[in-house]
Amino acid sequence: MKRIKVGVVGGTGYTGVELLRLLARHPGVEVVAITSRKDAGTAVADMFPSLRGHVALAFSEPTQADLTQCDLVFFATPHGVAMADAQRLVDEGTRLVDLAADFRLRDLVEWKKWYKLDHAAPHLNDEAVYGLPELYRDRIRKARIVANPGCYATSVQLGLLPLVSAGVVDREHLVADAKSGVSGAGRKAEIGILFSEAADNFKAYNVGAHRHVPEIEQSLSEAAGAPVRVTFVPHLTPMIRGIHATLYARITKDADYQALFERRYADEPFVDVMPAGSTPDTRSVRASNLCRIAVHRPNGGDTLVVLSVIDNLTKGAAGQAVQNMNIMFGLPETAGLEVVPVVP
Amino acid sequence: MKRIKVGVVGGTGYTGVELLRLLARHPGVEVVAITSRKDAGTAVADMFPSLRGHVALAFSEPTQADLTQCDLVFFATPHGVAMADAQRLVDEGTRLVDLAADFRLRDLVEWKKWYKLDHAAPHLNDEAVYGLPELYRDRIRKARIVANPGCYATSVQLGLLPLVSAGVVDREHLVADAKSGVSGAGRKAEIGILFSEAADNFKAYNVGAHRHVPEIEQSLSEAAGAPVRVTFVPHLTPMIRGIHATLYARITKDADYQALFERRYADEPFVDVMPAGSTPDTRSVRASNLCRIAVHRPNGGDTLVVLSVIDNLTKGAAGQAVQNMNIMFGLPETAGLEVVPVVP
Amino acid sequence: MKRIKVGVVGGTGYTGVELLRLLARHPGVEVVAITSRKDAGTAVADMFPSLRGHVALAFSEPTQADLTQCDLVFFATPHGVAMADAQRLVDEGTRLVDLAADFRLRDLVEWKKWYKLDHAAPHLNDEAVYGLPELYRDRIRKARIVANPGCYATSVQLGLLPLVSAGVVDREHLVADAKSGVSGAGRKAEIGILFSEAADNFKAYNVGAHRHVPEIEQSLSEAAGAPVRVTFVPHLTPMIRGIHATLYARITKDADYQALFERRYADEPFVDVMPAGSTPDTRSVRASNLCRIAVHRPNGGDTLVVLSVIDNLTKGAAGQAVQNMNIMFGLPETAGLEVVPVVP
Amino acid sequence: MKRIKVGVVGGTGYTGVELLRLLARHPGVEVVAITSRKDAGTAVADMFPSLRGHVALAFSEPTQADLTQCDLVFFATPHGVAMADAQRLVDEGTRLVDLAADFRLRDLVEWKKWYKLDHAAPHLNDEAVYGLPELYRDRIRKARIVANPGCYATSVQLGLLPLVSAGVVDREHLVADAKSGVSGAGRKAEIGILFSEAADNFKAYNVGAHRHVPEIEQSLSEAAGAPVRVTFVPHLTPMIRGIHATLYARITKDADYQALFERRYADEPFVDVMPAGSTPDTRSVRASNLCRIAVHRPNGGDTLVVLSVIDNLTKGAAGQAVQNMNIMFGLPETAGLEVVPVVP
Repeated sequence: MKRIKVGVVGGTGYTGVELLRLLARHPGVEVVAITSRKDAGTAVADMFPSLRGHVALAFSEPTQADLTQCDLVFFATPHGVAMADAQRLVDEGTRLVDLAADFRLRDLVEWKKWYKLDHAAPHLNDEAVYGLPELYRDRIRKARIVANPGCYATSVQLGLLPLVSAGVVDREHLVADAKSGVSGAGRKAEIGILFSEAADNFKAYNVGAHRHVPEIEQSLSEAAGAPVRVTFVPHLTPMIRGIHATLYARITKDADYQALFERRYADEPFVDVMPAGSTPDTRSVRASNLCRIAVHRPNGGDTLVVLSVIDNLTKGAAGQAVQNMNIMFGLPETAGLEVVPVVP
Repeated sequence: MKRIKVGVVGGTGYTGVELLRLLARHPGVEVVAITSRKDAGTAVADMFPSLRGHVALAFSEPTQADLTQCDLVFFATPHGVAMADAQRLVDEGTRLVDLAADFRLRDLVEWKKWYKLDHAAPHLNDEAVYGLPELYRDRIRKARIVANPGCYATSVQLGLLPLVSAGVVDREHLVADAKSGVSGAGRKAEIGILFSEAADNFKAYNVGAHRHVPEIEQSLSEAAGAPVRVTFVPHLTPMIRGIHATLYARITKDADYQALFERRYADEPFVDVMPAGSTPDTRSVRASNLCRIAVHRPNGGDTLVVLSVIDNLTKGAAGQAVQNMNIMFGLPETAGLEVVPVVP
Repeated sequence: MKRIKVGVVGGTGYTGVELLRLLARHPGVEVVAITSRKDAGTAVADMFPSLRGHVALAFSEPTQADLTQCDLVFFATPHGVAMADAQRLVDEGTRLVDLAADFRLRDLVEWKKWYKLDHAAPHLNDEAVYGLPELYRDRIRKARIVANPGCYATSVQLGLLPLVSAGVVDREHLVADAKSGVSGAGRKAEIGILFSEAADNFKAYNVGAHRHVPEIEQSLSEAAGAPVRVTFVPHLTPMIRGIHATLYARITKDADYQALFERRYADEPFVDVMPAGSTPDTRSVRASNLCRIAVHRPNGGDTLVVLSVIDNLTKGAAGQAVQNMNIMFGLPETAGLEVVPVVP
Repeated sequence: MKRIKVGVVGGTGYTGVELLRLLARHPGVEVVAITSRKDAGTAVADMFPSLRGHVALAFSEPTQADLTQCDLVFFATPHGVAMADAQRLVDEGTRLVDLAADFRLRDLVEWKKWYKLDHAAPHLNDEAVYGLPELYRDRIRKARIVANPGCYATSVQLGLLPLVSAGVVDREHLVADAKSGVSGAGRKAEIGILFSEAADNFKAYNVGAHRHVPEIEQSLSEAAGAPVRVTFVPHLTPMIRGIHATLYARITKDADYQALFERRYADEPFVDVMPAGSTPDTRSVRASNLCRIAVHRPNGGDTLVVLSVIDNLTKGAAGQAVQNMNIMFGLPETAGLEVVPVVP
């Protein structure tokens, strides 16, 4: 396999170190640059001793790293960074996967409402592809810019896609009750995510107003061919990795829902539809790129319950980014992602 | 305050040790007997060193403890024990609070369906009172037998009561997504609740078919004066104590929902309606008898979201049992329950 | 009981909220002021919802709070604050308990070496009393300034005191291997104590060079009447509260070590010498002011092992501060501290 | 690479599932049988959904599995099983790695004292090799039976080997204070390792009398050429994986200790001597076969402190077993073990 040259912008957060964990063992990739404004000069393995012996690079100044030598650059940065650099890179033939939200929404008015910024590259936003392979694989193949989906958004979309596509549920009153491990909040020095605040504790936040809602509704609406509305409540749960989305949908049309899911994901390497009656736990996908899904119809009633679990840092971020890279460069889609979940 | 004599049957589980924690500092109570078949003879403080210096009793054989000397007996036992002993005790003038489910359901056909047993004391079941003080305080006062509510049931009922009573939501399509700390599963030697299984993990279980559903629907239906249906999904979350119920209700009638909750619970010592916009965390009630509630209407849409948190072992079990005892014996309702939540 | 007036300087950290938890239920105390530079104007219960209904005060500007109206002021501040305010307060007859380190060391050269500051009140440092009641109860009674011991220091000193006082071990080669819950690091926005960093992880830090070493050696040397040297290694363990000190001492003189400990602490309300063979766990003292100790002599060899556990925020900080206050004002020593440990 | 045929006896515990995680991706191995008396007939992936898609086998009856078809059988069983089956297997040319203790001690009187059994195969015990590659690599190569070291024993031995071999410390008064994640206690239904017992808690156990002591002293004594004595205190810490050993040794001879460690482990693929001043955390080796070590001399005093961390299930059990297999069969020693640690 010919190795492609890869750069990582903003490698000091959790998605950054997760990217490096996966790329370090990827047979088709050579990481040639990792940037960090704050930590330029520090060896990556000094900041993350887990990478000692696996990553020999040091962080470099974003301005000094020659990212245009890369075939692909991952942006593991806060919102607003990728869109500022994108034009320069695509002009030189470098492709991008942005793990933040700069290119996730088609509607830039909506985007500005949620992200409080004017978009720096509206033209590029038009061509960017939303990087959910299970929905947009063909477009991803040729994309210059891939917008990697949000972690919550990934678990919710994969859990609801078969239902809204088939038109068997009330797509305007969906409920998504999602629970995330604390790493989803990032590697930021904030009181609320201290161990002593988040351990042995459980809470909701941003009730009904999380930034992942518009991208969820955008994809599902496109898949449904009609507007989709989701009441979304995220929660912080005292674990490091993992998202568990519990999804509620009112039935509008009878169907074999289990078969619907199995058919929809039959060829997907990273979506595992569990046997009827299953309750997947988040650890069953820990450190892996899998999404496991189970569908229930309690008491034969009129409400479906879908359970969807991912590792927020892998299928919810870095793993999906690598999957997108594999698709973009014609590599085997599972290359570098064949990690067996770590249990216990 | 004259001290009432209290016995505890089955004191070796988590509700047992929680009862003892609270009763040890209760100014109006003397604990005279604690039984355990398996551990008879063992000093309570040897099994639970946290009680050294607070509880001088040893566990005694259930058959040999003279429980009829007690004014009140708490049953912190599995289902099926209290109903077998109840007649003998009430005949001697001893009153009962059962922390298990023997007297929770009015409909014994329904009860048998869920608990797989013939009821041993149907006659007593008729007079037993469901021990949710916020709904049945007057009946509890005079009850000989109080059925202490389930932990999930407490959090869900308190969160939905004002809405279904006021008739402002679609009471046949309520959704209750509940998350419990692991202590809710009891102090039993089972693989699934080992540290290495439950830590850093999140999962649903008993999707739509948990035993707390019938008691929830029973109370809420009575409060609503019409049938109530709840889709209930419980989840195991990696913390010791706490339940967080996230409740979804479709609006049928406009109202000032915040005011509705504040009025309903204005005089309740143990229900705290939080200011609008709050997201209560479970630790804010840790080790205390409080239920904190917040009500949200995301984006002014047609779905209400109610957040309701309790400590499953306190307001969800032992604390509520003590609250019921206080009501039954004319003690101040907050006696022994003025514990400040332990944070962090 | 006549209520004494109490102020808290710096109430927004973990020792602050723990002080408030204990003082809120203390029968002999009225809290009249809580200061915080950063959060002046915020209601205490808004920052710590656990205190809703228990603490009605708002944080006030340190400069505007009239602390001289207080009988006692607790300093739950970083090092350097109490020593700057002390003179003004004692001049007005207000007594102080400093939960930081300003008055812990007799030797100010040593103090400066560890705390990198010139001492602002050397004269007051001379009269200040080290607030370990088990060693200095009589002096505390009359002290104007009490230096509340460090959390590690409390657990290590109580575990070694009987041995070094009795002269039965090699007092120059003691080993103290201590493990602390993360709350010991304070409520500070720092990466290293984020949930995602500290959970499911264990590490040592400050090997052999922790600031608690000089106060440990100072007290133990005074108790021994000869120099004591301790190799001290602190560790961060993924729990919120609790310190477990494992202490190793080479025997120099045979004795009944169990009896030695029992005699030394026979009259101490907050030191519990466990039966021979015990292994106290930290949760057995959670949220309480207790220190539990067990002494072992493995295989009858020449090395003693002492296990000493406390709650770092209670006996290791706020609880011991309240105990000192009780002693200073002639209140019952256990007033406000009769909390039963919270298990599980 | 030609694939060797491997069997696993007792695949339902944590070392079993960890073996399968590693073997599933091992390029040189085919797993042909996994036995479990209790769960025969159950698909492995039904018990461990993390292995769905990776392990297609079902558990088989130990008596019916033809293990003699295997080149190697791993015993991930309780003590006593491997020694009963060993003769039959070696007679057929099948080699063994026992992850339990049957073949760990040379002295069978000592063995019986600790394990309370008569040894079933003393003759084979004579030829068995203790599977610590860093000490016995050459013997492992040709061994028919390898006794995989205990988890604690691995971390302690690797941390002390360079010092006792070089004769620079008092080898009769070593102190090993070790902390283990809860998975070290196995996947057994026991109260003490329930989440609600072990979370937010810390405790010592088996003070000075743990079964790993004799194997530690045996290897170190052999390496030192003189008797070694260790005071060993194990502790349970609330994390899933990981061991942190903090080792204390009195200096008898000056040396460059850092260089000593670096030289000793220069060619070891799985021992990482950290730079001077480091404090390795357990997560830096999570899910990997590494041991990371740091050596400290606090304040230039006469006591050395060595910090040694491993993942108890990997280098402490299954990973080391695979490493031994690789050595036994002439495979690259790191085959199947190139997992990057999972952080966070």
